Order: sequence, then structure tokens, then C-alpha cells
Amino acid sequence: MQNPFDDTYFMKRALQEAEMAFEKGEVPVGAVVVCKDKIIARAHNLTETLNDVTAHAEMQAFTSAADFLGGKYLMDCTLYVTLEPCQMCAGASYWTQIGKIVFGASDEQRGYEKLKTTLHPKTEVVRGVLAEDCSKIMKRFFIEKRNLN
Amino acid sequence: MQNPFDDTYFMKRALQEAEMAFEKGEVPVGAVVVCKDKIIARAHNLTETLNDVTAHAEMQAFTSAADFLGGKYLMDCTLYVTLEPCQMCAGASYWTQIGKIVFGASDEQRGYEKLKTTLHPKTEVVRGVLAEDCSKIMKRFFIEKRNLN
Repeated sequence: MQNPFDDTYFMKRALQEAEMAFEKGEVPVGAVVVCKDKIIARAHNLTETLNDVTAHAEMQAFTSAADFLGGKYLMDCTLYVTLEPCQMCAGASYWTQIGKIVFGASDEQRGYEKLKTTLHPKTEVVRGVLAEDCSKIMKRFFIEKRNLN
Repeated sequence: MQNPFDDTYFMKRALQEAEMAFEKGEVPVGAVVVCKDKIIARAHNLTETLNDVTAHAEMQAFTSAADFLGGKYLMDCTLYVTLEPCQMCAGASYWTQIGKIVFGASDEQRGYEKLKTTLHPKTEVVRGVLAEDCSKIMKRFFIEKRNLN
């Protein structure tokens, strides 16, 4: 039997978070942290709302997941995030020792891969899950923003 | 007349924060953010207390400084931090567009310089201010920790 809780399933949940960010006028990036097929944290970008450049979806999701687990480390967890993490978020993931990162769209300019941020040696990476949907919501956001200005 | 508010003056304030971390059993790293010779944020590492690997002194100081200024960007500010920032904190500094980073001790293993994190092009860096004092408190911490275990 196929496991219904695959990467696509959880990326869709991250996309729902990105939609929530979009509706608030935030750059639409969403994230969930999953542990044993269960979502233990969900977050979306809140940099405008909180007036805080550190309030990326991933940062909040890490904090929230650690709080849920009662331990700082997330070795048994997977981060699903709609956009490739930046240096800050990839750097944070190093400290969490997260088991796996699954991201949707690549960020050619400010993504950690181009900028060569070091991940934790135990962190596995999966790229491009629902990449088109994850990319589309970003494009839609920036087109709408341009038209408003 | 000599300006009493030089890098050494503010690094001493960051060291006071590191001492506060030490007393709480936290890795003793302290930071202040200065804007026009005025400290607008102070923080120390709270990763153990908050059970959160993202609670580095710098991250809290950025959040707090932006909150004080009512704007997300810190172009006119200087971060003083006792230890060279890690990838996460240097990555966060990129987003803040901070004007200047002054650090004390180098972190040969996990500092952003060795790991080649990209800073904002407008960020100036000054290294090694009170480096010996900043390094000493770290060594003292790890020696005490080793003796307790």
C-alpha cells in the first residue's frame, strides 16, 4: 500500500502556509516540520507583520518544533519548505541537526546552495517537490506587488 | 578630544552580556547593537534557557534593535558581539543590512569567515576587539563544564 504521507502531501501543507503568508501581504513562503508522519510545527513568513527580518518560515518552524518536542535537536524530523532556504535558515538547520530538508522552488539568488552554506553532515536534502506550484505563488505575489506600486 | 564611545567601550558592554549568559550556564556570547553611540539592544545567548538553537545573542539583538527602531533594517547600526557570528547569524545580518559588525574572538570552526557566509555588501567588519577577554570567558566556560561532567 502506498503511504499517503509522502513528500508531496507535506509540501501541500507547506503551500497552504505560503498561501496564508500571501493573504497577509508577506512574501509567500511556508514551512512545516514533520516527525514520524505527523506535522509538529507549521509557520509562514512574517517578516513584515513582525517587522523582523529573522521571522522566516523556517526559523519559526524550528523554534516551534523544538518547543513541541521539548528538545533542541530535530534529528528525527523533516523540514518541508516551499522555497530553498537562505543562508540564515540553512545555518539554523545546521544547529538543529535536522534529519531532512525538502524544498520546493529553488532560489537562484539567495538560496543556500549557490551561497554554499554548510548543512549538518546528517541532513539529507530533497529538491524540487511541487517546485512549479511553489514558484508560481512567489511570481504571483511579486506581479501583484508591482501592479500595486 | 577622544570619543569615549569607541569599539572597546561597546565590546565591554557585550562582554557584560556574555557574563550574564555564563551565570545562566549558557555558552557565554553577548551582543549589543549600537546606533549613533547609543545601545539600542542588548542580548546574550539563551539557547539552553529557551530550548532553541536559534536563540543566539545576535539573533535576539537584531530582533530587539528592529523593534526599537520600528524598521526592519539596521544600516545605521553596529553589532558588537563577543564571538565571531556563525552562518545563521551572519546570514541574518545580511537581511538586516547592518552597517558594521565588530566581533571579539574568532570562531575557527563554526565562524562565518571560514564557512564563507556572504555578508551584505554594505556591511563593514572589524575583528579582534578585546579578543583575548572574549576568548577567555569561552575557555573558562568549557573548562568549568568539563569539570562538572
